[in-house]
Amino acid sequence: MNSPGFVLDARLAADSVLVAEGPLSQLRLMDDARFPWLVLVPRVADASEWIDLPGGQQRLLLAEVNQAAALLRGLQACDKLNIGALGNIVRQLHVHVIARRENDEAWPGPVWGSGPARRFDPEERERRVHALRAAFGRIDVSPT
Amino acid sequence: MNSPGFVLDARLAADSVLVAEGPLSQLRLMDDARFPWLVLVPRVADASEWIDLPGGQQRLLLAEVNQAAALLRGLQACDKLNIGALGNIVRQLHVHVIARRENDEAWPGPVWGSGPARRFDPEERERRVHALRAAFGRIDVSPT
Repeated sequence: MNSPGFVLDARLAADSVLVAEGPLSQLRLMDDARFPWLVLVPRVADASEWIDLPGGQQRLLLAEVNQAAALLRGLQACDKLNIGALGNIVRQLHVHVIARRENDEAWPGPVWGSGPARRFDPEERERRVHALRAAFGRIDVSPT
Repeated sequence: MNSPGFVLDARLAADSVLVAEGPLSQLRLMDDARFPWLVLVPRVADASEWIDLPGGQQRLLLAEVNQAAALLRGLQACDKLNIGALGNIVRQLHVHVIARRENDEAWPGPVWGSGPARRFDPEERERRVHALRAAFGRIDVSPT
């Protein structure tokens, strides 16, 4: 399923940490303590649009979005999920899955463009990654 | 495929116009001349999260996103597509599909939270809707 030539974008690498390798995508935690925020990065070279993937990969990415959302919901309550594929700044295809709360810092606006990230304390980040990894294996990737 | 009890949210109704009825969703043009911007509203009562739809409806919505993006690309060149399911303000499930250009008013930020809509001149809006409807029937809804 890996595409030869896939290299993670340098900005995504700097702004997030690897949680797990899914069937199509890297599942990464955004290093921003303001929001519970995952990003999926398909391991497909030169991909920039979800809809330009072959249909099977599109649907697999959708299944991974389901899984990421279930992970976030399992870890803490949220009021709304936000799912976004923008890529105006980083062109490498990546899909954001964010658990929003009505009292979070950007509510009701989008998290994108809501100001600079507030980095996790490294120990707290490590705890979150471990909790996500522990939950990751327990969630089926297939949509019902 | 229609769910009894579906009523279009009043704010979505005020901010967009119907282009066509897809297999699952209303395809609507946002009444904002700043961006080529479509929104898909599944005709499912009480839906607010993409991932809470049954799997078949999730995938149908993804196919409709493909169709909406193809429509936008067919009408004018764009530099990037933005796809988003947010719903922080309007909870009724709706998915945005926006054709972004590097010289548009919000670039490289998201269109959400980028200031008030600039309404179309009614004649121009009518022309756009007609062009979208003419193209709509020519685009297969299935992802490849």
